[in-house]
Amino acid sequence: MSILVVGSVALDSVQTTQGSRTRVLGGACTYFATAASLYDRVNMVAVVGTDFPQEHLDFLRSRNIDLRGLQIVEGETFSWSGRYGEDVNVRETLGTRLNVFADFSPVVPQDYRDSECVFLANIDPDLQLAVLEQVRSPRLAALDSMNYWIDSKRESLVRVLSRVDVVLLNEAETKLLAQEPNLIAAARLVLGFGPRVLVVKRGEYGVMVVTQGESLEESLFAIPAYPVEDVVDPTGAGDTFAGGFIGHLARCDRLSLEALRRAAVHGTVMASFTVQGFSIDRLRTLSLADVERRYDAFRHLTYFESLTPSERGRFHKLFG
Amino acid sequence: MSILVVGSVALDSVQTTQGSRTRVLGGACTYFATAASLYDRVNMVAVVGTDFPQEHLDFLRSRNIDLRGLQIVEGETFSWSGRYGEDVNVRETLGTRLNVFADFSPVVPQDYRDSECVFLANIDPDLQLAVLEQVRSPRLAALDSMNYWIDSKRESLVRVLSRVDVVLLNEAETKLLAQEPNLIAAARLVLGFGPRVLVVKRGEYGVMVVTQGESLEESLFAIPAYPVEDVVDPTGAGDTFAGGFIGHLARCDRLSLEALRRAAVHGTVMASFTVQGFSIDRLRTLSLADVERRYDAFRHLTYFESLTPSERGRFHKLFG
Repeated sequence: MSILVVGSVALDSVQTTQGSRTRVLGGACTYFATAASLYDRVNMVAVVGTDFPQEHLDFLRSRNIDLRGLQIVEGETFSWSGRYGEDVNVRETLGTRLNVFADFSPVVPQDYRDSECVFLANIDPDLQLAVLEQVRSPRLAALDSMNYWIDSKRESLVRVLSRVDVVLLNEAETKLLAQEPNLIAAARLVLGFGPRVLVVKRGEYGVMVVTQGESLEESLFAIPAYPVEDVVDPTGAGDTFAGGFIGHLARCDRLSLEALRRAAVHGTVMASFTVQGFSIDRLRTLSLADVERRYDAFRHLTYFESLTPSERGRFHKLFG
Repeated sequence: MSILVVGSVALDSVQTTQGSRTRVLGGACTYFATAASLYDRVNMVAVVGTDFPQEHLDFLRSRNIDLRGLQIVEGETFSWSGRYGEDVNVRETLGTRLNVFADFSPVVPQDYRDSECVFLANIDPDLQLAVLEQVRSPRLAALDSMNYWIDSKRESLVRVLSRVDVVLLNEAETKLLAQEPNLIAAARLVLGFGPRVLVVKRGEYGVMVVTQGESLEESLFAIPAYPVEDVVDPTGAGDTFAGGFIGHLARCDRLSLEALRRAAVHGTVMASFTVQGFSIDRLRTLSLADVERRYDAFRHLTYFESLTPSERGRFHKLFG
């Protein structure tokens, strides 16, 4: 199995209470691929400029990431700069230069077209749709988006939503897309656009996974974030969440509710590592064994009763 | 066993997106006592004016709540009015009239002095201390407070903190008291003031329970809130959380970490019922069986693996 990702690769400049970095490796596609590559082979479709440092290419290749879909175009790489204060949930964008990313037209190499999982990171929904047109029949297609596209390209976004299995949004985006202030009601409305699963990202408050289901407890799963005392840089937490989430699902035989829940924990754990360093630094040396150790710690952080084998039956229900 | 509570009894006027109510039964002591009385006998120490409706006294008595410590004083009952918008986490206070509550001097009746659990709801920390001086040796003493006392009576608050087992604060209050922006670091600083347990209330994002412990997973427990689609009135959620939390602990033989975790779930469930109606309306007809059904649903909302019997061993460790 392999995972196809399309999205941004960037050079980020970031300031946090813990320090600052200039033109370090960033972008949704980068964070996702670095995380997901711990689970499976990742096929990357993205664009960078001729200024993109060779060392970053070398790093990505070293991580079981196929770069044949990475276009290197004359010009400068997409760059983003931003700042976080003491409240790590609030980010101030200081500058965005799209550069070569402005004219990005994703081309999926022939060898990628049978990828079994597809992650459409946060880009123009028309480009997300163009990517879906180029792949055969993925077992799992997921997308991320943002308020900018919800406001400016709502129709395109709704169209691509009807073609994916999983959508990942933050809380405000979920409410904005549904035009409904209650999160659970909003989540159900988003599922009405077609996806089978909505993952609501709530930053340091964790995630909620919403599926179709008759009762609340059959259709909702909620977990807190893994508590991190030493948050260095929150950039990329959402995209590495997606990397752990899709990465785990890619190696599951069945897309059961149980697999979905465990995938959300994998994403949670992965994101907790990301924020402990600038850029993807903490992920560079991370092993799947590290992830599994923190997964186990997370279970101990959240459990208050054991489930009996008979009760576990309902977890095995397929969600598709 | 019995539970002593001291705090406010009020007549609230509230506006929410779901409607409004004028001069309905409210106050931290009321919410706490109504919730905790599902578990055990509650001894109430509070004050109301001669305008306080007889029907409210009748209701409280009907709930196994002992009112011998409720002073009825010439004058008007404490009244609060406020408004919630679409974001239920934000409350706007429109008016506070302390009335007879301004000169409240809590007197603990002789028959209450052997209460095994004591809950000091959010009042002047000097009054909280005065109550502790009047009880013998409770098995469990807990307090709630707020930013107003942290700012204006810090020394008194720190003194009473050193004499209780459990402190309940919201996230902002925890950071304010500790003067530390990272929640986990702040929580550890608060434990440094003396309490064995800090419960951080995060509104619709759930709670975090922090205890002394070597590893993160031994000292932290985090759960989301029970998701409520039909929030009618968030008033009293924190105090009914405390009622379910202390109520459950009051009926446990041992104050183990496991008991503490389950108590946090009881509090979570209790709070979720409260917000489904104005005032204490939803609690009027609530049974412990209703609470236990939602407790079970909550387990299914949050679990992703079962715990084996051998793994459960570490949960049984005493926290004191």
